[in-house]
Amino acid sequence: MTAPLFPRVAIIGLGLIGSSLARCFQADPTLAGTVVAADRSDAVCARVLDLGLAAEAGTDAAAAVTGADLVILAVPIGACAALAAEIGPRLKPGAILTDVGSVKESVVRDMLPHLAAGVHFVPGHPIAGTEHSGPDAGFASLFQGRWCILTPPAGTDPDAVERVATLWRRCGSMVEVMEPGHHDRVLAITSHLPHLIAYTIVGTATDLEEHLQSAVIRFSASGFRDFTRIAASDPVMWRDIFLNNREAVLEIIQRFTEDLTALQRAIRWGEGETLEALFTRTRAIRRGIIDAKQA
Amino acid sequence: MTAPLFPRVAIIGLGLIGSSLARCFQADPTLAGTVVAADRSDAVCARVLDLGLAAEAGTDAAAAVTGADLVILAVPIGACAALAAEIGPRLKPGAILTDVGSVKESVVRDMLPHLAAGVHFVPGHPIAGTEHSGPDAGFASLFQGRWCILTPPAGTDPDAVERVATLWRRCGSMVEVMEPGHHDRVLAITSHLPHLIAYTIVGTATDLEEHLQSAVIRFSASGFRDFTRIAASDPVMWRDIFLNNREAVLEIIQRFTEDLTALQRAIRWGEGETLEALFTRTRAIRRGIIDAKQA
Repeated sequence: MTAPLFPRVAIIGLGLIGSSLARCFQADPTLAGTVVAADRSDAVCARVLDLGLAAEAGTDAAAAVTGADLVILAVPIGACAALAAEIGPRLKPGAILTDVGSVKESVVRDMLPHLAAGVHFVPGHPIAGTEHSGPDAGFASLFQGRWCILTPPAGTDPDAVERVATLWRRCGSMVEVMEPGHHDRVLAITSHLPHLIAYTIVGTATDLEEHLQSAVIRFSASGFRDFTRIAASDPVMWRDIFLNNREAVLEIIQRFTEDLTALQRAIRWGEGETLEALFTRTRAIRRGIIDAKQA
Repeated sequence: MTAPLFPRVAIIGLGLIGSSLARCFQADPTLAGTVVAADRSDAVCARVLDLGLAAEAGTDAAAAVTGADLVILAVPIGACAALAAEIGPRLKPGAILTDVGSVKESVVRDMLPHLAAGVHFVPGHPIAGTEHSGPDAGFASLFQGRWCILTPPAGTDPDAVERVATLWRRCGSMVEVMEPGHHDRVLAITSHLPHLIAYTIVGTATDLEEHLQSAVIRFSASGFRDFTRIAASDPVMWRDIFLNNREAVLEIIQRFTEDLTALQRAIRWGEGETLEALFTRTRAIRRGIIDAKQA
């Protein structure tokens, strides 16, 4: 039997992403020799052991990372800085640390100061997820056919980057290396703004007069129904994303609002050509996404 | 063999909805004795005959409705008034006229003046669809498990309403009768605003700098991907919806914009509690929709 890709792996945070990764390790024993888990919730730890997702599970993250060759932070990004301070001194020289956060510039800024020179930090973001949360929500095929973006700081050991890339590829992902700021601007558009809008519109609906709201739920059409699914995503995770990708999100909200105002005006003044021209133009982007096999 | 529900049916407009209905008639011969089709496009008429969706198909709507017991208008709502003027004089006494438009108050207002007293007008709206258009996009199970809302004007013959309701039920739909203005306010929230927002955000993305736009398409995540699907819907149909449901749409855009501005402000000032509170509240609506089996 060949040696596993990583002899010892520690996963911190066993939610949707962390537990899906644990299931990937479970499904393919050549990825990790031993998997240990840490989660701040006792209930989650108990569930992880019940599901057989890790050899050990406890609330002490520093203990979990001791001796690990690979440490994966899969927690809301607001928790990354404190965790880095806690586990930083316990990472062994040569260990690889990665994360799965949806914002990369702030994660690099917050975590790097806590890491010793001999530790390899390879920030990552698997662009995959569902609206469900917790250790029971994960599944091994979550990353199949989806992108994982790595944003290593300048000077990171290329071997460490390649080992993390190999892990993601063997979980089914396609890997791209990107500058953290570029990642954050792209995700502000493709993910953060759509989630904010979905949360907003579902919130607007919850404030409606009661008789209108019950009809809205009952006759929920495509469109609103999709938005409610998006707006059922984990609240703390999304709070942290917006707080940590503030500048890119505010910039894209501003552009969006200008464009919406222009459409609002076209509706008010009955400018059918303006509406039809935009509605025709947007079809091309959909074709691009279908061609890129991300539909 | 028992008599069909309608001996002769004319479908005007053979797009996604019209051709799906034609396929329902094809699948269940007890619904209609003879189905004739009219579409302003010669190519669509030829395709309809190729697919065997109607016994006759041509561009002359007035000829198609002659002698029909049921006439179904399945055209963009902006075309309803002119069509009503064209076919109105040719409808036989006792004929039932229905439509499938997504706005009901304007349709009733535009069509009713063209109809003789002996014609039964039962406006309808099947809340079903996909982002695809044209006679090849239809399928018989499109209406399965979906609501169809009927908005008959005051004084409409209850038997006519019941026969249209029976048709929709036998196509797999659940039927609800509603006042047109209430329908339009509900749909403004569940369907029209979500589509407008999806069109807007995809439009915002098409205006990005080229290198950012190609990354947006390539790394399109859940959220944006869903929006592009919605924003690939038929441009003329949606133009007409916004022009005809103007007041209800403008009112809900205004509420939405206020709510988005409040969230934008919370992001700018780092008010995490405000964000988390809303993101938690919106989960409840999703549960309501799942409970209503519309998810």
